[in-house]
Amino acid sequence: MHVDELATPALIVDLDRLDANIATMAQRWPGTTLRPHVKAFKSTALARRLAAAGHPAFCCATVREVEGMAAAGLDADLLLANEVLDARRLGAVVDRGARVTVAVDSPETIAAAAAGGVAEVLIDVNVGLPRCGCPPDQAGRLAELASAQGLRVRGVMGYEGHLVGLEDRAARQSGVAESMALLVEAHAAVGGDVVSGGGTGTWDLNTWVTELQAGSYLLMDTAYGALGLPFQPALSLAGTVISVNPAAGYAVADVGLKALGMDHGNPTVVDPADAKLWFCSDEHLTFGRRGATSTVGDRIWVHPGHVDPTVAYHERMMVVQGDEVVDSWPVDLRNW
Amino acid sequence: MHVDELATPALIVDLDRLDANIATMAQRWPGTTLRPHVKAFKSTALARRLAAAGHPAFCCATVREVEGMAAAGLDADLLLANEVLDARRLGAVVDRGARVTVAVDSPETIAAAAAGGVAEVLIDVNVGLPRCGCPPDQAGRLAELASAQGLRVRGVMGYEGHLVGLEDRAARQSGVAESMALLVEAHAAVGGDVVSGGGTGTWDLNTWVTELQAGSYLLMDTAYGALGLPFQPALSLAGTVISVNPAAGYAVADVGLKALGMDHGNPTVVDPADAKLWFCSDEHLTFGRRGATSTVGDRIWVHPGHVDPTVAYHERMMVVQGDEVVDSWPVDLRNW
Repeated sequence: MHVDELATPALIVDLDRLDANIATMAQRWPGTTLRPHVKAFKSTALARRLAAAGHPAFCCATVREVEGMAAAGLDADLLLANEVLDARRLGAVVDRGARVTVAVDSPETIAAAAAGGVAEVLIDVNVGLPRCGCPPDQAGRLAELASAQGLRVRGVMGYEGHLVGLEDRAARQSGVAESMALLVEAHAAVGGDVVSGGGTGTWDLNTWVTELQAGSYLLMDTAYGALGLPFQPALSLAGTVISVNPAAGYAVADVGLKALGMDHGNPTVVDPADAKLWFCSDEHLTFGRRGATSTVGDRIWVHPGHVDPTVAYHERMMVVQGDEVVDSWPVDLRNW
Repeated sequence: MHVDELATPALIVDLDRLDANIATMAQRWPGTTLRPHVKAFKSTALARRLAAAGHPAFCCATVREVEGMAAAGLDADLLLANEVLDARRLGAVVDRGARVTVAVDSPETIAAAAAGGVAEVLIDVNVGLPRCGCPPDQAGRLAELASAQGLRVRGVMGYEGHLVGLEDRAARQSGVAESMALLVEAHAAVGGDVVSGGGTGTWDLNTWVTELQAGSYLLMDTAYGALGLPFQPALSLAGTVISVNPAAGYAVADVGLKALGMDHGNPTVVDPADAKLWFCSDEHLTFGRRGATSTVGDRIWVHPGHVDPTVAYHERMMVVQGDEVVDSWPVDLRNW
């Protein structure tokens, strides 16, 4: 099927670009030195492609992602890089034979892991982002507490999420050094083989972690696109022009904000190239053009501002090579 | 089950508030003078409650919504208040016995309705919002074109979406008068029984339409809450505090932006009442408090900025009365 025959709005993955992104990252972070982050794409089909490319260990952000990855047999080494207070669903996944590690940053989350039947943990360390993670100087104490409750402490994780989007590369670089100094200090107190962290924005700057937690590099978005990284935009939304108003100089397409993560702002219309986005509403995108007006039935293509919440709105990704639809991947890891 | 036993993040509907909103609107717009807009809640269970309250005619924004409403037997009078270029799926719904009307605003969408097997249309008229709808002076010509292709023209619709959110009531009022003058002019040229339009923000100002297309009033959000309308916030997200950092003065809950429509900005934390939201990320909400810090395991409640894209992220709404969970309604009209 030609891509222009797809019903719209359609979430579209360019397979060649995706594969190029996988290859670029794998050169620097081969095998299990990369722990691809499922939260950015929520698809076991895409995860299977990463496993085939030599990355069998994955990072998840929700219990549903862990469950879905395990159900798909991608269960060699699943890290829930997030805190949970009821780990029973994770314990059930472990009981079915998966290897599951969960992040902990407090006595409460350690107790939850032990009670829920998860055998392995990472101590989550705050390295500057105001989010989860214990203070670095408490990591050793928490590791002892976890061990005392029968948990195996594999090491530490710490996410420099306050830095990954900085457009000034020098600022990103010096920030990562400071953040990772905290993580290394915590690791010395905790022990274990694993120092997990980093992301797409610091992929070539973070030289401290033993495994990189990157996900956005696979599909990319306009926010990460502003950083000048060597990863190509592989995710688009295709829409159809359903109404035009030549006198007022605008057209309307069926790619609304229910098809787009909007927290990073509006998407970018990439085709037609001279389009100027006016605004998005629930089911519509209104745009003008410097050149000719559009015709009802024309296709438009947009790149989302933020990949993760965009993908989470869709049931499936249509996979294309050139203009040909070659596959359809369910977004089967949505919700919680 | 007590509401605090729900897994989080949870989308929660307060049933008593919902029913109060239904009753308030029904006093002004009883029976088929109200055409509740399914796009705001995407649930046939909630739609069934509206039908039981005397509103059997519905407004939809997507083909999927029409299909789902018809499959649920709520097919007495379904209006797709949106333009489509492939109406075959709508025609299939008609073939199964549903009454389906579709908005048209161009020769192309008229041809699509006829080719797809939809028998009835409304002429969609632009009344000032830069989106779909023909210029008012072309409505009569399009009605003739539709009739010539065998379609029954039921009347006109026009949505004053550029006005429904204006906080200045006087400006909203004068704007509605101007917009509806255009719609009335178009209706004179088109004929038919139906003049459809309006929304939650103009529910008591729009005295021109024969049926009001309102949806947000049912669940409400903080954007509409700013207008001083008599509808109560009936939709919340419940989350759990999964991490606290007393030294830095913040806590982290598991209500991230993948659970929230973000185009109207951040949600509002309503419990704890002294919370100050710092930021949302994909799976987290970081907040501080003027009072005591939170404890791991505490619940938080937030109101979304925009109801429609919030609901669209969820599989189900949990229905509560007081603190008791009394039902679960699938969000079964998601996607396209």
